[in-house]
Amino acid sequence: MVSSSDTSSGLSSPTPPRAARYELITLGDELLLGLTANSHLTFIGAALGRRGVILGRNVTITDEADAIAAQFRESWARSDVIITTGGLGPTCDDRTREVIAGVLGQELVFEESIREAIEARFARMGRKMTENNLKQAYRFSRGEVLPNANGTAPGLWVEQDGKVLVMLPGPPNELHPMFTEQVLPKLAALGLVAAKEAYVQVRTAGIGESALEMRLQPLLAPFGDALSIAFCAHQGQVDMRLSSPSGALDEAALDELAQKCAGALGDDFLCFGHDSLAKVCADLLRAGEHTLAVAETATGGLLANSFTDIAGASKFFAGGCVCYSNESKMQLLDVPEDILMQHGAVSAENAVAMAAGVAERLGADYGLAVTGFAGPCGGTKENPVGTIFLALYTPEGVWSRRLSQSGPRSSVKQRAVNGALDWLRRELVRAKRGGTRAPFGGGDTATRHAPGG
Amino acid sequence: MVSSSDTSSGLSSPTPPRAARYELITLGDELLLGLTANSHLTFIGAALGRRGVILGRNVTITDEADAIAAQFRESWARSDVIITTGGLGPTCDDRTREVIAGVLGQELVFEESIREAIEARFARMGRKMTENNLKQAYRFSRGEVLPNANGTAPGLWVEQDGKVLVMLPGPPNELHPMFTEQVLPKLAALGLVAAKEAYVQVRTAGIGESALEMRLQPLLAPFGDALSIAFCAHQGQVDMRLSSPSGALDEAALDELAQKCAGALGDDFLCFGHDSLAKVCADLLRAGEHTLAVAETATGGLLANSFTDIAGASKFFAGGCVCYSNESKMQLLDVPEDILMQHGAVSAENAVAMAAGVAERLGADYGLAVTGFAGPCGGTKENPVGTIFLALYTPEGVWSRRLSQSGPRSSVKQRAVNGALDWLRRELVRAKRGGTRAPFGGGDTATRHAPGG
Repeated sequence: MVSSSDTSSGLSSPTPPRAARYELITLGDELLLGLTANSHLTFIGAALGRRGVILGRNVTITDEADAIAAQFRESWARSDVIITTGGLGPTCDDRTREVIAGVLGQELVFEESIREAIEARFARMGRKMTENNLKQAYRFSRGEVLPNANGTAPGLWVEQDGKVLVMLPGPPNELHPMFTEQVLPKLAALGLVAAKEAYVQVRTAGIGESALEMRLQPLLAPFGDALSIAFCAHQGQVDMRLSSPSGALDEAALDELAQKCAGALGDDFLCFGHDSLAKVCADLLRAGEHTLAVAETATGGLLANSFTDIAGASKFFAGGCVCYSNESKMQLLDVPEDILMQHGAVSAENAVAMAAGVAERLGADYGLAVTGFAGPCGGTKENPVGTIFLALYTPEGVWSRRLSQSGPRSSVKQRAVNGALDWLRRELVRAKRGGTRAPFGGGDTATRHAPGG
Repeated sequence: MVSSSDTSSGLSSPTPPRAARYELITLGDELLLGLTANSHLTFIGAALGRRGVILGRNVTITDEADAIAAQFRESWARSDVIITTGGLGPTCDDRTREVIAGVLGQELVFEESIREAIEARFARMGRKMTENNLKQAYRFSRGEVLPNANGTAPGLWVEQDGKVLVMLPGPPNELHPMFTEQVLPKLAALGLVAAKEAYVQVRTAGIGESALEMRLQPLLAPFGDALSIAFCAHQGQVDMRLSSPSGALDEAALDELAQKCAGALGDDFLCFGHDSLAKVCADLLRAGEHTLAVAETATGGLLANSFTDIAGASKFFAGGCVCYSNESKMQLLDVPEDILMQHGAVSAENAVAMAAGVAERLGADYGLAVTGFAGPCGGTKENPVGTIFLALYTPEGVWSRRLSQSGPRSSVKQRAVNGALDWLRRELVRAKRGGTRAPFGGGDTATRHAPGG
């Protein structure tokens, strides 16, 4: 690593993470115009969070010089660690280095070792370095260089006024390894992040945010300010993250509390960490050496796709059918024509015939079917848009359920998939545990059907 | 819409968009912790951009009361339109309403109509409203309510001190329709955004960003600074957005230029605007009164899903099969066992048998099949991870193609789907136009197969 000899730090290095205020400045009109998602916030926020630090603020601004100067001045005044992304490219509109050096009262100095690295990179690609790339060979006079193995612009590291400035290149494939391999260890050495990851996430399914909070209140409230609780709801699932920014609760205490929460949640508990509903189902299927086949109308492939997103899905996933036409239901799944005539495609009876049909056709132990009206057109008075019928074929019988969803088509589809996955999960958990079926919440019930529909 | 009678506006309503400073405050630890991508910035930034406004700044902060107060005070002082997202939920960590009302010197008043809407929503779902939901029934004393058809928390609208505050709920399925259907029209009525979209987007497929730029250079260069050109590449597709921030080119001139670009692009031109590849295929299929069936292994439902995301897909989409096991390929698609034995599942021969099988089974005019290794496991020396075979069954014969993709599993899947869709699109365009098949770029060729594989 290239490092200057006259770095003036002014930072001590205690062991637990100090309560430092972190701020991320993401630069670029493409972010403000919604042309590119702000993946830097997601990546850096998550990486810091796993090290016991909650990023205090993220500001996205245009890469116009005055805006950068004003924002940086403000951020430098109020925060302890400022991370910038972008604006380090070779073109004339990348002025971030110059502007920030000006605010900090530093000179930019030409660093021969950077020029060599950039030239070597161009040579490896069989291309010649253009003159404007030399712009990237400047560092702060009192600062260090973070070498970039995946691009031309190195990162820059400055310690000044008891604060840290980290400037990172914009392309994710350059930023990610630089942050993980260079920035986090340097922050940890200064005691500004934990030396290892420090939080626990409790993931739930089938329970709303407010019900979850009320259910766990007796377990969580006694910890007061020692405990930080963050809820995050997404498409019918709620995650709860427990941490202790003050360090009052250590890793073992957080783990113990998370275990208690999981116990109190019963089957509404999905997992610790980040596994998806489909992944949890996949693990249960693999553990039980079961196979699954799916049949869908309204969700149109999204259910199958949630399983096939999992690497190695062929171990448990036999396949799926997307049956939009009645013809396809009869041809692919042997749904009897009189069921379609008598009950229609959006019915418990058809869902049951689809689930049984696909499981039997593909020789799978479990069959999961979804039919319904995803909208915005379609629907009847009895079964309006958003009505979903699920059916689950198991070694012990076949059941159906009815759900009502609302919202745009994509949301109805995703929620119907989540509802189907959660039902399968609960059934697999019950089968593994033995015992009777627990009733569903909110008046939702499953109907048992005779074999053969 | 619920609206209070004593709204004090202080805003005039000129016709063209005023040069207003827009600021977006996105609230939530889940954003700062990287648990959720900041899709609000992407959505709102893009929506404003299409109405001639560049969002000036986005600040993401924790939903802790002091942080919200400090940030809101700062933003209110410097900007004209402040949009907040999140923090309107029912749990104790959702304090945004109270804090911002405090800064603005407003009271929060209980709004009976909101309580009724929330109760009705719970009743429809067959659940009982919990007490903490009542928190969401408060509005600003001098402000309006933006009803929420898709969730419990309504949006809030305040005009004060010649500025506008818009508070939106966090879940995207609630925020998106509220922003499009309620907020944009209200902003347009105040002259704060253009009354309609003020740019033209040329969407392409199957051509890279630099090739696109070089191809169109002769058409675009003459306009100099009068024309603003933004490129946006996503999963093998490139969009080009033309606008004239100075107003030097009017709508008719931009349209004319876009038409010329489309002409120069030939079959690489996809559409004007935002239609997806699948949507363009769907329109071509509907126009020709054709039907389509799909069969997939590696893409695992994602291909079917791209069609079933389109409302009214049942008009042209017969259905699809996701065939992970050899058993399912034989059972559902009549793939002959000796093809699987001789060539393997990842082969042109199997793709052809799948495309023909699904089209014949479902009585569709076109059959589109994808097979391959999505990774990270699998693959052979001859066909490594990322190898994709496509087959297209048409009224005139059946063809296969081989693609090589790289990247993570999700990216290989999406690019394979896009490759399949773009092939279908080119074939449908050619069939409509008549004439011979144009060669694919980059040495990519389609192989014709005899009927029956």
